[in-house]
Amino acid sequence: MKELQKSGFEFSLIPVDYTGIVDLAQLRELVTRETTVTSIMYANNEIGTIEPIRELSELVHERGQYLHVDATAAAGRIPIDVQADGIDLLTLSANDLYGPRGAGALYVKPGVKLQPILPGGGQERGLRSGTENVFAIAGMGEAARLAKAEMREESARLQRIRDTLIREILKLEESYLTGHPTQRLPHHASFRFSRIEGESIQLYMDTRFNIQVATGSACSSKTLEPSHVLLAIGLKHEEAHGSMVITLGRSNTLEQIPAITTAVHETVQRLRTLSPL
Amino acid sequence: MKELQKSGFEFSLIPVDYTGIVDLAQLRELVTRETTVTSIMYANNEIGTIEPIRELSELVHERGQYLHVDATAAAGRIPIDVQADGIDLLTLSANDLYGPRGAGALYVKPGVKLQPILPGGGQERGLRSGTENVFAIAGMGEAARLAKAEMREESARLQRIRDTLIREILKLEESYLTGHPTQRLPHHASFRFSRIEGESIQLYMDTRFNIQVATGSACSSKTLEPSHVLLAIGLKHEEAHGSMVITLGRSNTLEQIPAITTAVHETVQRLRTLSPL
Repeated sequence: MKELQKSGFEFSLIPVDYTGIVDLAQLRELVTRETTVTSIMYANNEIGTIEPIRELSELVHERGQYLHVDATAAAGRIPIDVQADGIDLLTLSANDLYGPRGAGALYVKPGVKLQPILPGGGQERGLRSGTENVFAIAGMGEAARLAKAEMREESARLQRIRDTLIREILKLEESYLTGHPTQRLPHHASFRFSRIEGESIQLYMDTRFNIQVATGSACSSKTLEPSHVLLAIGLKHEEAHGSMVITLGRSNTLEQIPAITTAVHETVQRLRTLSPL
Repeated sequence: MKELQKSGFEFSLIPVDYTGIVDLAQLRELVTRETTVTSIMYANNEIGTIEPIRELSELVHERGQYLHVDATAAAGRIPIDVQADGIDLLTLSANDLYGPRGAGALYVKPGVKLQPILPGGGQERGLRSGTENVFAIAGMGEAARLAKAEMREESARLQRIRDTLIREILKLEESYLTGHPTQRLPHHASFRFSRIEGESIQLYMDTRFNIQVATGSACSSKTLEPSHVLLAIGLKHEEAHGSMVITLGRSNTLEQIPAITTAVHETVQRLRTLSPL
């Protein structure tokens, strides 16, 4: 968006509420006949919140505009139907589907015309020139097939484990769930703990318990800035710093939950005894 | 280049002589203080001609400009030394080095500043955002290591086979070598045969003899237009149509040459009996 701004385009960021759901009233005001495209994540990778895509789509299409949805975090976790959901453009990533790193996909609704992102030899229907990454593309196809075949059962299984995990972790004092309590990805749990740092949680959980958790987004964990997502849902800087994300996957079982819960409790308590706050 | 032209940039194409060597006198005239970059192939993939990169580099640098070299066809075949050759930017492709499809490399001389080709998450030093294609990148590194280790010996071996192949094929009447007779890639042989079509040669060699040859460039073989490379070296349309490229590789041996030569002779003679020309 900022790159396009340099060439004279304008963009607006639509606020979200404290659960991460986009503000439809504001969107209604901001999307006009002059708007080209509205872009939103199907679900957020940091707080797990699933956006009301069908309502968004109706609103955007009433004004004759296009809806782009980034389904990287949602794909393979919840059903996505570009036709029923009214999606014009959908982006996917292979590695978030247990596929190989380095491949992605863009769904383009028939009739939507795009500028090439990379001009040149005209590969990928002229949109992205360059010799195709054949192995990763094939791997992504197979990963998507498997994800679709297993999704219903696997997501239900992970959601049961995840719900137990959330319940047990929130027994800690001054611990809070971030994101939406129910409209969230089934394998996703995200928290904040007061008076400690997400970086330290991540490090301690890994070195002491060999459990890998995340803090903030993968993109922003290189910097010391708090997550823009957590600031957008209205957290103060000091609140946003103490965040932890746990995503469950194929290798996780209900039997692991007591050990994970104990590890989180010990980590948070230990870090709080060290905290100057 | 044509994309840049839309944003107000200008470009000129430098002519080549009938062997494919770039016209340095014309280049000297066209590269001015206003020029940003001069781009050339280290060696041409269709006619095998190796360009005088060091002379080019001196000429371009005298005017304080940058030299970009596409070494896709040359890498792993002949020694390339970006420092000794005076190259500011060098592009490579993995699959031309026996590496995996889908990865490439751009060498950037320290101090050369580039605009990102893909803005976004800032991967690959901010030049090409997007999750890196890790497997293909690792595969390319290993392919490059192997190519470098084997290049001297392997290129000498292939050149001996290739020289025999050229000598034998040129015994056919109205057959001609295209590209430079000596300044050419060691594994590369390219020809033209009067009165027949490259497409038919390729098809007949494959189906009748199970020998895979090429015609024109990989990029242009999707269209019926004759190769722009063959037109650039001064061939007429009808001459450019009868082209055939044979590139030798690890699996080829001197013992195969009589069979390949016989196949080419038979193919050309057969197609000439069918030709209306």
